[in-house]
Amino acid sequence: MTNKNTLFVDLNAATMGESDAPYGLIKDAAIAVMDGVIEWVGPAASLPDMYISLDRTSLGGRLLTPGLIDCHTHIVHGGDRAVEFEMRLNGASYEEVARAGGGIVSTVTATRNATEDQLLQDALRRVDVLIAEGVTTIEIKSGYGLDTETELRMLRVARAVMANRPIRVKTTFLGAHATPAEYEGRDDVYIDEVCIPALRAAHAEGLVDVVDGFCEGIAFDTTQIARVFDVAVELGLPVKLHAEQLSNLGGAKLAASYGALSADHIEYLDEDGVKALADAGTTAVILPGAFYTIRETQAPPIALLRKHGVPMAIATDVNPGSSPLNSLLLALNMGCTLFRMTPEEVLRGATQNAARALGLKDVGIIKAGMRAELAVWDIKHPAELAYRIGFNPLHTRIFGATS
Amino acid sequence: MTNKNTLFVDLNAATMGESDAPYGLIKDAAIAVMDGVIEWVGPAASLPDMYISLDRTSLGGRLLTPGLIDCHTHIVHGGDRAVEFEMRLNGASYEEVARAGGGIVSTVTATRNATEDQLLQDALRRVDVLIAEGVTTIEIKSGYGLDTETELRMLRVARAVMANRPIRVKTTFLGAHATPAEYEGRDDVYIDEVCIPALRAAHAEGLVDVVDGFCEGIAFDTTQIARVFDVAVELGLPVKLHAEQLSNLGGAKLAASYGALSADHIEYLDEDGVKALADAGTTAVILPGAFYTIRETQAPPIALLRKHGVPMAIATDVNPGSSPLNSLLLALNMGCTLFRMTPEEVLRGATQNAARALGLKDVGIIKAGMRAELAVWDIKHPAELAYRIGFNPLHTRIFGATS
Ligand SMILES: [Zn+2]
Ligand SMILES: [Zn+2]
Repeated sequence: MTNKNTLFVDLNAATMGESDAPYGLIKDAAIAVMDGVIEWVGPAASLPDMYISLDRTSLGGRLLTPGLIDCHTHIVHGGDRAVEFEMRLNGASYEEVARAGGGIVSTVTATRNATEDQLLQDALRRVDVLIAEGVTTIEIKSGYGLDTETELRMLRVARAVMANRPIRVKTTFLGAHATPAEYEGRDDVYIDEVCIPALRAAHAEGLVDVVDGFCEGIAFDTTQIARVFDVAVELGLPVKLHAEQLSNLGGAKLAASYGALSADHIEYLDEDGVKALADAGTTAVILPGAFYTIRETQAPPIALLRKHGVPMAIATDVNPGSSPLNSLLLALNMGCTLFRMTPEEVLRGATQNAARALGLKDVGIIKAGMRAELAVWDIKHPAELAYRIGFNPLHTRIFGATS
Repeated sequence: MTNKNTLFVDLNAATMGESDAPYGLIKDAAIAVMDGVIEWVGPAASLPDMYISLDRTSLGGRLLTPGLIDCHTHIVHGGDRAVEFEMRLNGASYEEVARAGGGIVSTVTATRNATEDQLLQDALRRVDVLIAEGVTTIEIKSGYGLDTETELRMLRVARAVMANRPIRVKTTFLGAHATPAEYEGRDDVYIDEVCIPALRAAHAEGLVDVVDGFCEGIAFDTTQIARVFDVAVELGLPVKLHAEQLSNLGGAKLAASYGALSADHIEYLDEDGVKALADAGTTAVILPGAFYTIRETQAPPIALLRKHGVPMAIATDVNPGSSPLNSLLLALNMGCTLFRMTPEEVLRGATQNAARALGLKDVGIIKAGMRAELAVWDIKHPAELAYRIGFNPLHTRIFGATS
């Protein structure tokens, strides 16, 4: 649907903006869009004269929200892990899975062996599912190459997604995701010899928007992550971190000390860590798909995040191992069902706060001056987006000049 | 895609039939279909001469499975419960939700107030999502009318679904779902004055394939269910039961004593009850969507069901309250993730054993003599169907003469 110089009418708008109404809801709203930018939004009855002559597009009484934003994905990767999934359910031990080439190693191998075009075609199938759900911006991480050539290839593919589809992509360098087999037991050497040089090379090619890491017993410690973050600072790049997913190593605090955009997962975050996020203005990114898939029992500290006013985003974490979750709507339901977040919190988490987690100031809310990246839903109440499971009520997505 | 006198080639077939191979897999298979019936299936290299001249349709190396079967749904209903979902997450007590008209009462009211066409149009939106996932047969229950007129209207809508879409529908009378407000505290009177007369009226109109009930502390006891089942027997109708979902009242044993097609939910079933199902040849229908939504912690006794050889089916239970789950593929993933069923068990549960749970002998397996109701998937390994979450790899559905 084109949004070039249009007045959208016959709609209710969940603006997610500042308002006394839940969801920033404006009933019987009108929205004036000119050249892909929201010029005015408000009750149709208050429409300023200057917009009256615009071509009108009726949305038939439907609900309008900001386009959804998936702020944490590993959507570019080679292969899948279905056979490993099946082996585990058939009772295979960790060792048996590893001997069969399973685990992240299998994804690294498949990604290294895939051409840029193969990676792109595979990613586009998954991206198309998100687009069909009203997603207008996604983040895409590297981190399955773990060598310079493949890390850069993944990021080029991430940029190519944006060139091939009407969607905005923010790229994240995640060289500090795992230590590859050829550096086993030599994590520090990997960080120095591969991860940091790859980051510099990717940055030189203009491929990096943000720098990420995985701070965990099975990945890197805070000292190693800090070395990567120091280079990010030197290069003028913002950071974020996979933190406190399986244990509390102080990753979120470290990230906060670098003014991180976000700390992600955080099931094991304590109140001190929550306060650190609050003080730094760091967004907490909640990832229920991984919690569900690995059958975690410790939920993230939602009540503490609320208490200290930490903005919460929510994302799919789509990846072939711990979260083969390709639906942001389903992540919203999981946030409610598994973590008792409210439907308004999860929708804010996939719009306003997801934009915040990506450092974007021009999307995530419906208000004047923001880009007209919007989703039109065949529903009456915004809570329906989180309530339904495996049902996509999208009517139309509005993105730039195309739907 | 038409299947009238076609030889499907270039495919791998997960036949789900008797075979030493997991999934009854036949690699590089061919399938001869004539007049909507499978005439022959086997390795392409063994194709009998008589089928060589059939028109060929290449499936491009894709995976073929039986069409999926959703054997437990409440897909016909009025309204939704999104606002109630939101109230609960905002901390509303049970009483507050009830005072606001929430709970099953709200669905009964909405269903009674809906016209046949409204119910049909709403149901078709949901049915279309299942069709898009390769579902070729669904069961549809009444049970939100709780008066004769509305129970019959629900069943007429269920029949109309089949008239309006290329899908087979089996109807289930579920008058013994709950006691409506006007009979509160008079469960027995409701059974005698409404439920049983409504069953007779629905049967007389040819609307009933199977008779169901809800045996639970919050619904009906075994004595009340038995009265309904006795009428089913008199009318020559098979039975099934919502049993042992929240507690162990002996519902599954009762159902088994009537030779029930299935006992559904059964989280609280004990080994005695499992044996009763095994002896009666009753299928256990596993419903992870409700388990997930109501945050149940007691999983159904999968190991005991395996031990005693009880066939396991799996279904969505799609309903507006305890399981707004509109995706059978997602139910497959939940069966694996939440209950540690294997990918093969859940796929068998949505094909061969789902057919069994509906008393159908001509679908659910790919073999000669069965109806050519099939699903073609863009995947390499059948485990991918259960592994992915919120991603639908259907390429084509084959149903009668249309796709
Ligand atoms: Zn991640
Ligand atoms: Zn049910």
